[in-house]
Amino acid sequence: MSDSAASFSLTETLAPWRSTLARALHRNRSRPYSRYFQLATVHPDGRPTNRTVVFRGFAPDRNALMFVTDERSHKVKDLHHHPYGEACWYFTQTREQFRLAGALTLVSQTHPNSALTQLRQKLWADLSDKARQQFYWPHPGEKRVEDWQRFEEPSPDPEVPPEVFYLGLLIPDWVDHLELRGEPQNRTQYAQVGNDQWQQVEVNP
Amino acid sequence: MSDSAASFSLTETLAPWRSTLARALHRNRSRPYSRYFQLATVHPDGRPTNRTVVFRGFAPDRNALMFVTDERSHKVKDLHHHPYGEACWYFTQTREQFRLAGALTLVSQTHPNSALTQLRQKLWADLSDKARQQFYWPHPGEKRVEDWQRFEEPSPDPEVPPEVFYLGLLIPDWVDHLELRGEPQNRTQYAQVGNDQWQQVEVNP
Repeated sequence: MSDSAASFSLTETLAPWRSTLARALHRNRSRPYSRYFQLATVHPDGRPTNRTVVFRGFAPDRNALMFVTDERSHKVKDLHHHPYGEACWYFTQTREQFRLAGALTLVSQTHPNSALTQLRQKLWADLSDKARQQFYWPHPGEKRVEDWQRFEEPSPDPEVPPEVFYLGLLIPDWVDHLELRGEPQNRTQYAQVGNDQWQQVEVNP
Repeated sequence: MSDSAASFSLTETLAPWRSTLARALHRNRSRPYSRYFQLATVHPDGRPTNRTVVFRGFAPDRNALMFVTDERSHKVKDLHHHPYGEACWYFTQTREQFRLAGALTLVSQTHPNSALTQLRQKLWADLSDKARQQFYWPHPGEKRVEDWQRFEEPSPDPEVPPEVFYLGLLIPDWVDHLELRGEPQNRTQYAQVGNDQWQQVEVNP
């Protein structure tokens, strides 16, 4: 995590899979599923876990996908133990799938990289009021609190993210793009082989 | 794997999450995403992997989700190493998510349970001609074969599945159901606590 944090302020070249993913996002932009993907991580007991997360765009000048999460969520525990993830993103309309695997970095209030803590602040400000409220709800995953008022907090300050609010970054080093509509089908894999260096290969679907 | 195989011929009671999932499948039945989910497994190197698989229904009289796969695929290697998975199934229309975690069993031609090998045979016969052809394509994930004719095999025999054709079974022992449309949201977790015994609890979203 410290490596990626240290190098994070550097401007990267756009990875070769970025334009392909951008095209898919554009072609499916009216569809709800262009706004979220499924993110797999590994539980400390070694079992895989999987959930839908909302895509919050790319980090500026980086090939990193952003999402937000709650410190109290299980995936944060997973990531402290094993900071890797694989996103699976299926676009129904164009029948294509992206798998994006790589390191996962979590950015809390106390993260040493100030560019990242500013980014965290910006993502908090950009959230809807309703999305911000969820970070003030009772502990997610614990036995349901009976008091419904606990889920109706007053509007949180858009300038001040709570401690439990984390920015998450998926920094892919491997991407697999499958197009089911090809003849027969097309599948391209991208592997990072160095700083800003990617190897791209057509593989059998 | 041997435990689940040995007990597989027993008829199970319908798990309490089955009716909830059946309702979601019914309400979203016209949508493409009611036919597939994202399945996370763990690579032998410990990193999570994630891909879309087509849902092939429930195994008869069992609380197990069926899918088919190719022996040559990476997930088969993952599962030999670590036979667990978590499915994430998001239904856009009704805004609800199911996470289903549990043991993954692979059924090959030589599997000792004859009920399961018969089920494998049935799934093969039920596939479309086009889907069956893919099991005769060149090795998936390897460098693309130039000869396009290799992807145009003659129609495979619907009675005789090839050796590489596997039936996969996800046998959940934990299910998490999140309804984003609730007020505020509803989230129910189901944990298997014994044969045919499930504990159901409402948790904070």
